[in-house]
Amino acid sequence: MSRKILRINMSDQSAVYEDIPEKWSKWAGRGLTSAIVLDEVEPTCHPLGPNNKLVIAPGWVSGTPAAPSSGRTSFGGKSPLTGTIKESNSGGLSSKKIAKLGLAAIILEGEPQNGEWYQLVITKDGVEFKDAPDLAGKGMYEVDEILWDQYPNKPAVIGIGPVGEKKLSNAGISVNDPEGKPGRYAGRGGLGAVMGARGVKAIVVDDEGGPGVDIADEDLLKQGRTKLRDAIMEHDLTKPDGGLNTYGTNVLMNIINEAGGLPTRNFSAGQFEGAADISGERVAEMVEKRGGEGMTGHGCHPGCIIQCSNIYPDEEGEAVVSVVEYETAWALGANCGIDDLDYVAEMTYQCNDLGLDTIEAGNTIAIAMEGGQIEFGDKEAALALFDEIREMSPLGRIYGQGVEATAKAFGVHRVPTVKGQSMPAYEPRAIKGIGVTYATSPMGADHTAGYTIAPEIAGVGGKVDPLDEEGKSDLSLTFQAATAFVDSTGYCLFIAFPILDISSGWEGMAESVAGVTGLDITGDDVIDVGKEILRMEREFNKKAGFTAQDDRLPEFMRYEKLPPHNEVWSMSDEELDQVYAWTNGK
Amino acid sequence: MSRKILRINMSDQSAVYEDIPEKWSKWAGRGLTSAIVLDEVEPTCHPLGPNNKLVIAPGWVSGTPAAPSSGRTSFGGKSPLTGTIKESNSGGLSSKKIAKLGLAAIILEGEPQNGEWYQLVITKDGVEFKDAPDLAGKGMYEVDEILWDQYPNKPAVIGIGPVGEKKLSNAGISVNDPEGKPGRYAGRGGLGAVMGARGVKAIVVDDEGGPGVDIADEDLLKQGRTKLRDAIMEHDLTKPDGGLNTYGTNVLMNIINEAGGLPTRNFSAGQFEGAADISGERVAEMVEKRGGEGMTGHGCHPGCIIQCSNIYPDEEGEAVVSVVEYETAWALGANCGIDDLDYVAEMTYQCNDLGLDTIEAGNTIAIAMEGGQIEFGDKEAALALFDEIREMSPLGRIYGQGVEATAKAFGVHRVPTVKGQSMPAYEPRAIKGIGVTYATSPMGADHTAGYTIAPEIAGVGGKVDPLDEEGKSDLSLTFQAATAFVDSTGYCLFIAFPILDISSGWEGMAESVAGVTGLDITGDDVIDVGKEILRMEREFNKKAGFTAQDDRLPEFMRYEKLPPHNEVWSMSDEELDQVYAWTNGK
Repeated sequence: MSRKILRINMSDQSAVYEDIPEKWSKWAGRGLTSAIVLDEVEPTCHPLGPNNKLVIAPGWVSGTPAAPSSGRTSFGGKSPLTGTIKESNSGGLSSKKIAKLGLAAIILEGEPQNGEWYQLVITKDGVEFKDAPDLAGKGMYEVDEILWDQYPNKPAVIGIGPVGEKKLSNAGISVNDPEGKPGRYAGRGGLGAVMGARGVKAIVVDDEGGPGVDIADEDLLKQGRTKLRDAIMEHDLTKPDGGLNTYGTNVLMNIINEAGGLPTRNFSAGQFEGAADISGERVAEMVEKRGGEGMTGHGCHPGCIIQCSNIYPDEEGEAVVSVVEYETAWALGANCGIDDLDYVAEMTYQCNDLGLDTIEAGNTIAIAMEGGQIEFGDKEAALALFDEIREMSPLGRIYGQGVEATAKAFGVHRVPTVKGQSMPAYEPRAIKGIGVTYATSPMGADHTAGYTIAPEIAGVGGKVDPLDEEGKSDLSLTFQAATAFVDSTGYCLFIAFPILDISSGWEGMAESVAGVTGLDITGDDVIDVGKEILRMEREFNKKAGFTAQDDRLPEFMRYEKLPPHNEVWSMSDEELDQVYAWTNGK
Repeated sequence: MSRKILRINMSDQSAVYEDIPEKWSKWAGRGLTSAIVLDEVEPTCHPLGPNNKLVIAPGWVSGTPAAPSSGRTSFGGKSPLTGTIKESNSGGLSSKKIAKLGLAAIILEGEPQNGEWYQLVITKDGVEFKDAPDLAGKGMYEVDEILWDQYPNKPAVIGIGPVGEKKLSNAGISVNDPEGKPGRYAGRGGLGAVMGARGVKAIVVDDEGGPGVDIADEDLLKQGRTKLRDAIMEHDLTKPDGGLNTYGTNVLMNIINEAGGLPTRNFSAGQFEGAADISGERVAEMVEKRGGEGMTGHGCHPGCIIQCSNIYPDEEGEAVVSVVEYETAWALGANCGIDDLDYVAEMTYQCNDLGLDTIEAGNTIAIAMEGGQIEFGDKEAALALFDEIREMSPLGRIYGQGVEATAKAFGVHRVPTVKGQSMPAYEPRAIKGIGVTYATSPMGADHTAGYTIAPEIAGVGGKVDPLDEEGKSDLSLTFQAATAFVDSTGYCLFIAFPILDISSGWEGMAESVAGVTGLDITGDDVIDVGKEILRMEREFNKKAGFTAQDDRLPEFMRYEKLPPHNEVWSMSDEELDQVYAWTNGK
């Protein structure tokens, strides 16, 4: 039984199961969403028009037994935020369930003629199209609760908040977590608006009785996943009670601050005096002190053995939100000059509920501050800004679109974006390699697209000087290619830490993919396969009109020195263009 | 005495007079602004950042005696609306006065460190930098009045309204008319925001005692301008009591409606049932009926012999606004489903006062209507929208940015823009040649960049079928090149009507330029010189990252049929790419 493509057309509410065509058969996850988008979406189409599509795909190993930390689902389409091809992936419950239904991908296309909102229910028996007037306008916490009440089987729920309904460019796609709550987001690039433009508020996925995933070579899969698991369990960053398990991703706050690379107050400094107050250590301290529902070492999907998530408690020990990530605490904290974790947590809740990417949302607040709408550090005003979005006031419509729209509305020209997407929590003037990734990734500014922070800061996969330009083009490309591969596996990107240092883990990852798919892939092929994916993505972008001039960091970083290193962005255009020079022959 | 470049740096409030360098010495008007912008503005700079510049240049014949209808001033820079190079030109008082001061161009660069607003006063004695706290925040009617009170010599006033101060992308640059009122606008492309980013609210230009314009060959100039004048006085469209003089540009309303090419209700139909009610004939009728200050056959600058402007009166005969143009009446009328000239006139006044381009403003209202904010045809609500802009409410900040920003805020995907600039009053699905101009002009969608309407509708310069694709690529290029030349002369583009039909007029235009400059230019060189300008502009855009994919009409026009002809946009990408194929070798 081959994997199926489930094609759902919202224009006539039809659903068709197609055998996966030969041209896509090797792909899963990001590789598959990008292949489908390249083949089926006209690159110059309007991202919110009837001809864009939302593609949802689990990874190669998703849904196979005991593959560690393999719960990622890829979402792809043309991005309303960037105009590029986009893949954004999320943890949560959806990946395994979609895979176990025998689906390689769900393609959501067309638009309802009546302007109604739909709820789709996908089971082994097919797709049910339900009117969802009761869900429309609701936040994701309520939506997830309603749907788990309706479907006691604890299905995956993929949904959009009010921001996605209004088709604003900072709309993410929520996937519910093991507790049935939102917070796992395919956040970046506004794909929630693409789902909204299809008229779909939520997709319920129940894999009960599904056929499961075909496995080509059980032994090879077992061998691979064991190697990978061992590496994860051994590495300092990912082992139980290791850095990520203890402090979450927010273990980085003090480290990046120390390195002078923590973007502060809309990228005007590289260190924040309040960093410690919003760090992972402080989160752990609050969890310890307040107790109750608070926890660290929380898992975002079943089968995760890293468990870097947390549940942030309020003073009474009741859960405020899961998860306060590093990127989130930085975006809503340091970058806004805010040093209060309780406010960061509350704003994170608002993002999860409204359906906003936290990175873009935090950057947006910082732009509102730079534009004189709010004072830097004014946490009350920052929090109140989410009320505007909830009310969909005109101001809320500005903020709901993210950084570039907000900058234009307030005449701000210090705009930390690449290809329309705002930068995450690493200052490229202080950490050059990640700047190369921001500049050249087909996704716009995105740390997860090629996380050179590993060798530049964490000493993982080697150790290089973050301030040095030398070799950073090659470094970024290698990381971008490896990432494209990992994003296709279904594994969480955090497996990269152990497998960069422990070669048997790297082999194990490849072997597990070969075991499931029967593809002739070894550890030696990972980079080349990743480059195939990048090539497809760059091809889409080229056809959409993107050029080398789009592979640049914002102008102000070229002339404004960043304290404390007092560095400008100094990589030459030639060095940036070198990253994808290998695609130019084709 | 050679022409000077006046370089004004707002960072240190310095002004330097430079001899015009050899590389620019042949250019004036648009040719000069584009040459300077290409040489001095980094194409990937932020349009509102410190490294963009505003260049102001009169034409070759500006300021010479008796050159007919030669009062155009070119404004150039990198556009905040489109991201392309931009030249936008205006009538009014400035052109001759700048030329008579011996200036080839004024380059406005830098940005004040203190965030203050300045008023610049340019006379034969130099530049005075005056703090202008009293002008900041004021509308252009008041600003123009204040400055004529301060300077009784009736100087030219170049200024920006509140929209330019806030650096919003639909900010135009106002030039006062012979009555000392705003209404002559370098409207398109948001150059008012570029002026605002320089901290300059207004520039007063007094040419009293200026050296005047050097003339290389008085006889040749005289010969040329006489031929040109004769052609203007002879042609049906431009002669006294001809079409333009009698009904203004708005003579087109009924004609374009009849042709099925009048974009109606955000480009959803090609005919408007209320066209006659907002036509030039109706304007003339109102002027006739109401009397008082109302007039047709009004001139926008001294020395104009076409006089296509008007002054629209209210019921008591008092002037509401000058001028209700065809584009304006269409944008604020037909495209919004509004058929009431009094409202159109009042909204035009608001645009002139606030500093908005009327075409972009009308399209913006139509998008707000499409997005469900206002009903199509609701003239009260449309007018009230300007209050939002005046108050700079969040909604006003959205609308003040123009069409694309408004569409994004309200999730609209039927967006009639090219390169970020909205289309003027001719439907490309019904009139193919103008669509080629919209798609391929370096300026974004702009009818004045290559007005193929002349042969397609008016039977000027030949007669071709508007619905036919054949030959439209070449036609558009020829018109774009001729326009680039005319935009450099200082002559109004409307001389094109007579000189397309009367070859001695075409020769006369070229001879007058040769007479002033001493350049070896004849009528045979016009297209080639125009193409040199286009080549510079395309080069800037290429360096800014624009590609063939940007030379496309919006997606919805490719799949949505336009009544009454029920045509889609049908020109192929290859036909569009053919227009500028000649630039690819270089």
